[in-house]
Amino acid sequence: MADILLRDGYIITMDAQRRVFKLGSVAIEGDRISAVGKEVRERADVVIDASGKAVLPGTINAHTHLSMTLLRGVADDMPLMEWLENKIWPIERNLKGQDCYAGAMLGCLEMIKSGTTCFADQYFFMKDVANAVEEAGIRGVLSYGIIERDDPERRKSELQAGEKLVKECHGTANGRILTMFGPHASYTCSPECLMQVKELAKKYKVGIHTHISESQDEVERVTKKYGRRPVEHLDAIGFLGPEVLAAHCVWLTEQEISILRERGVKPVHSPVSNMKTASGVAPVPEMLAAGIPVALGTDGAASNNALDMFNEMKFAALLNKVHKLDPTAVPAQAVLEMATINGAIALGLQDEIGSLEVGKKADVLLVDLKKPHFVPLYNVVSHLVYNAVGSDVDTVIVDGEVVMREREVLTVDEDKVLEEAQKASGGLLACWEAIR
Amino acid sequence: MADILLRDGYIITMDAQRRVFKLGSVAIEGDRISAVGKEVRERADVVIDASGKAVLPGTINAHTHLSMTLLRGVADDMPLMEWLENKIWPIERNLKGQDCYAGAMLGCLEMIKSGTTCFADQYFFMKDVANAVEEAGIRGVLSYGIIERDDPERRKSELQAGEKLVKECHGTANGRILTMFGPHASYTCSPECLMQVKELAKKYKVGIHTHISESQDEVERVTKKYGRRPVEHLDAIGFLGPEVLAAHCVWLTEQEISILRERGVKPVHSPVSNMKTASGVAPVPEMLAAGIPVALGTDGAASNNALDMFNEMKFAALLNKVHKLDPTAVPAQAVLEMATINGAIALGLQDEIGSLEVGKKADVLLVDLKKPHFVPLYNVVSHLVYNAVGSDVDTVIVDGEVVMREREVLTVDEDKVLEEAQKASGGLLACWEAIR
Repeated sequence: MADILLRDGYIITMDAQRRVFKLGSVAIEGDRISAVGKEVRERADVVIDASGKAVLPGTINAHTHLSMTLLRGVADDMPLMEWLENKIWPIERNLKGQDCYAGAMLGCLEMIKSGTTCFADQYFFMKDVANAVEEAGIRGVLSYGIIERDDPERRKSELQAGEKLVKECHGTANGRILTMFGPHASYTCSPECLMQVKELAKKYKVGIHTHISESQDEVERVTKKYGRRPVEHLDAIGFLGPEVLAAHCVWLTEQEISILRERGVKPVHSPVSNMKTASGVAPVPEMLAAGIPVALGTDGAASNNALDMFNEMKFAALLNKVHKLDPTAVPAQAVLEMATINGAIALGLQDEIGSLEVGKKADVLLVDLKKPHFVPLYNVVSHLVYNAVGSDVDTVIVDGEVVMREREVLTVDEDKVLEEAQKASGGLLACWEAIR
Repeated sequence: MADILLRDGYIITMDAQRRVFKLGSVAIEGDRISAVGKEVRERADVVIDASGKAVLPGTINAHTHLSMTLLRGVADDMPLMEWLENKIWPIERNLKGQDCYAGAMLGCLEMIKSGTTCFADQYFFMKDVANAVEEAGIRGVLSYGIIERDDPERRKSELQAGEKLVKECHGTANGRILTMFGPHASYTCSPECLMQVKELAKKYKVGIHTHISESQDEVERVTKKYGRRPVEHLDAIGFLGPEVLAAHCVWLTEQEISILRERGVKPVHSPVSNMKTASGVAPVPEMLAAGIPVALGTDGAASNNALDMFNEMKFAALLNKVHKLDPTAVPAQAVLEMATINGAIALGLQDEIGSLEVGKKADVLLVDLKKPHFVPLYNVVSHLVYNAVGSDVDTVIVDGEVVMREREVLTVDEDKVLEEAQKASGGLLACWEAIR
């Protein structure tokens, strides 16, 4: 007997054969999927009518800075360095753990309401973020953002902070909370720092979440300092490997794409952020053609400004088409893969999440298709990529628990989360106004 | 005494000074706005609490083909000509008036639910579209799509069809339905045809809705045939003027931008469609810098695939940034202008709609700001452009009538509209399957 049965839905499995069941069911026992398909006859404690709804794996936001929800809309339409140096960084200097908790709760709420069940985060006060993840009932792969800035003392304390997070939080909350090491980038961390991170990641058997080649400026800085472009530099020092989750990967040569493939690096495409900061367009069609399982992420809310993976999917499909002047580039099916199974692969969780298959964790969405923008209904995958928005998600299940039902989030007090986030953000801005 | 009072909202007027009232009100008498501001003390029959909501002019979708909602998601990710010749055009050949009515009702419903109060349409069976517009309670500027294809007989019947629409429908439904002439483009209509349209438009004092320089292929065809690029060609024959609403305007030289400005042509930017068909990126920053009031439109649902102007705004802001590698390009305020007051200017309706000002038609939206993706709340314009989606619209007023209240559309039976559109679309596809 199952705990939950999702009955008579349009099941998009994202399994190896990308099977779709037009009128199928998904059964859940405990935290795992126990049956998927047309002929699921199990009885269950809770039966959810999925007719008129798409049933799909929860989306995986493979790169964000969750607590930056607090800086959403605080500054837009500015040159990148002016934005960072005059706005984002000065405000961040006053961050406290309680702020990051409030921002993370807001982010978890927004992600649940838009159908994200797992995210990869890199930021500060990550124990507070872990507390929010545990409470909200979402799945998170957390890393402390290590920024060294040529200071060996700072390196030591930063590595300790990264290690502390891994030791304290990895595998907690029934395994919903996992960790990585989070060296910020090759222009903010020395080769020594990066290689110490690599050793630590090996020791703790966790991944590494970093940024690679986001902007032309970064490529120039790294090339000037190390005589090589970022990917070449990171490869030369022996840093790259299948455990490396690489945000952005915008400015890559053909040679660098080959290196990423050979080393098994996992790039994360963040089209909205790349567009908003005017960083450039990642060579996604080339990476996919090379067999690299590119994932998808929103980046932080300060540069997006949403955490809506459905919105991100539409941008991923369209940006790459216009950039190549090729309407066949990155079709809808490939985009849905980026947002689900590729995200799981990127986080090393392909045996646990990313598709609806027996034995996998039950991270499942119901998307309500009975809306004007989904009519006529022929190709559900096309609709999910080109028409769906986060608010079309009706029900969200994470780790076998229903965390949202008919758009009501069951794990947190929504009003309280909004209020406390607004307060925390206001406090940060007041500090910043006072000191500048 | 007012009929409707929207009280204590965050009022974004989009008037000449772009005034914003953080806690203001809007009063409506009959079909027009009777008061706007902080100190509105009028009594009203219906008082709507707008606290926690943004109150703004309805968005104006300045270019679409409404009934193409029936072809939404039928074919994606295909080369443009293959898509048109093997899918869209063969299916369209079987279109009947009742199909266009069903598709237009679906489109009106989708637009109302996403906060569009006025749209400019170019398609076929436009009397049926007018019926849908009248019923749904939205405002529409309708044109019959004139396609000549070097056939003088066809030219004559097409011009008659265009003239018939103008005669029958212009100014009907309390003025909610207006008309234009709709010559498709300079590669599908001869100079003779275009100049006859211009004469007719002058005679009936209506505008002209056409497509200009959507794709490189179009530029090549026109240049080959007439020895000039599209804008130069249209200027040389004397076609261009302030009454011309020009969809797309993607491939323009500096010289062509100057011509558009000098002639007062009204370009409509459709970023999503241009991206999906991989047509290219319009020089929006250059046109805005030249003082051209660029408007915004979704194009038809077959190439978008939504009719959501909030979604379109985010794309407009971001596409132009990444294309120029300039994060300051097309800031949020400029985008909101494109979607409201510029749309009104483009349709020659700047004295009637596009802003919240005393004496203008009451086309007004309430957007619910009490949602995770609008927290923290500092810059409402930024949030509307970078975070809002159509489903955040709570209430819609058109011509002084409440057509949607708390997301319930009051003018049409939503279930029936969805059902009939699905049926009409199914019929079209069945015809097409049978004949190919």
